[in-house]
Amino acid sequence: MSTAQHPPGQARPGGRTARTRAAVLAAVFDELGDKGFAALTMEGVAQRSGVHQATIYRRWRTVEVLVCALLTERSAAIPVPDTGTLCGDLRALARGIGVFYGDARNRAMIEAVVSAAGRDPRAEEALREFFDDRLGVAGVMVRRALERGELPPGTDAEAVVGALGAPFYYRMLLVRRPVDLELVEQATFATYAAARAGAYVRTGEPPTGEARTGKAQIGEA
Amino acid sequence: MSTAQHPPGQARPGGRTARTRAAVLAAVFDELGDKGFAALTMEGVAQRSGVHQATIYRRWRTVEVLVCALLTERSAAIPVPDTGTLCGDLRALARGIGVFYGDARNRAMIEAVVSAAGRDPRAEEALREFFDDRLGVAGVMVRRALERGELPPGTDAEAVVGALGAPFYYRMLLVRRPVDLELVEQATFATYAAARAGAYVRTGEPPTGEARTGKAQIGEA
Repeated sequence: MSTAQHPPGQARPGGRTARTRAAVLAAVFDELGDKGFAALTMEGVAQRSGVHQATIYRRWRTVEVLVCALLTERSAAIPVPDTGTLCGDLRALARGIGVFYGDARNRAMIEAVVSAAGRDPRAEEALREFFDDRLGVAGVMVRRALERGELPPGTDAEAVVGALGAPFYYRMLLVRRPVDLELVEQATFATYAAARAGAYVRTGEPPTGEARTGKAQIGEA
Repeated sequence: MSTAQHPPGQARPGGRTARTRAAVLAAVFDELGDKGFAALTMEGVAQRSGVHQATIYRRWRTVEVLVCALLTERSAAIPVPDTGTLCGDLRALARGIGVFYGDARNRAMIEAVVSAAGRDPRAEEALREFFDDRLGVAGVMVRRALERGELPPGTDAEAVVGALGAPFYYRMLLVRRPVDLELVEQATFATYAAARAGAYVRTGEPPTGEARTGKAQIGEA
């Protein structure tokens, strides 16, 4: 990423804006870990970070926007792997997700973000953008696999990455059980087998004899 | 289900308790659809249902407990299929889930329940119990497939059902996009292919040459 251009208000790495941002997001992360989202307030973040409450309000407006900013920052800690094989890449990414959400503060964070998205349209938009972006970025490992001929042509890269991640969020947010190494292996193997079999091939054409229908909103069905 | 025995406070089908319950849950559902979870109050539910607020408080205590009760009731509308083949059953269940969450009120409900679980341990426990129960019940279709020899021995029935459901919740709650028929087909085909390939076989033994590790908490890894 170039450091030459910065829109007004954006962080310049190492600058004062960047330090303020880092201090505030670190405080949000710790507050979430200590008290959870329900008790997260701008005042608490200001106290813990040592940054003026007015500054925090001006830049982030609501605690919902704050936790979304935190998600974007923290998730950069999950690298997109390049091991040379799709299976290796899927496993490395699944491990990355698993380790990330093995930290209770990261679980509290995603919980807070999802909860915020249900109540605040700006938080929902931030979450949607985050996942669009994240799926696009991680999709590169699937596109590399396509170039290597490891997957059926027409495979939807974002769909494969989403399939790998979905079981982790399901386990944490719905089933309410810990993420474990068995889930990492299951998600890896399942996504690999399904992708190879053509489950994520785009278009209405079935990759096997199975009947597949075109894209349509449910409810009109 | 037998109607002979009812623990105190439980609904007797057709009785006054059952009618009260039905009226209250219907009101919660409509309130969620109209206003969302953030605006859901005991008072609003009382007004809409015509049931005394004191009665609602006594039976359900919090709005969090109310939305969890609603989830349990509403989800009975997604039947566990028995088409004679695993692929048919998976598709029918995926369609059931897809149609269910095609209704904006059901989306608002699951959103409310997940949000509640993040803030209220009783709601979290209710959600955990709900999914344990639901995965167990729907697991019967996988156990039937095992008996028919359609799946590798040792396949974890609950894991297969969870794999089918996970992409829907991921799409709704994380990616924040509508559930569509393409997702139904993708989830069906992916779960079928992965299960047949042995992705959900229990134990530390790999079903293929892929290295699989035993069950362990992440973080100690």
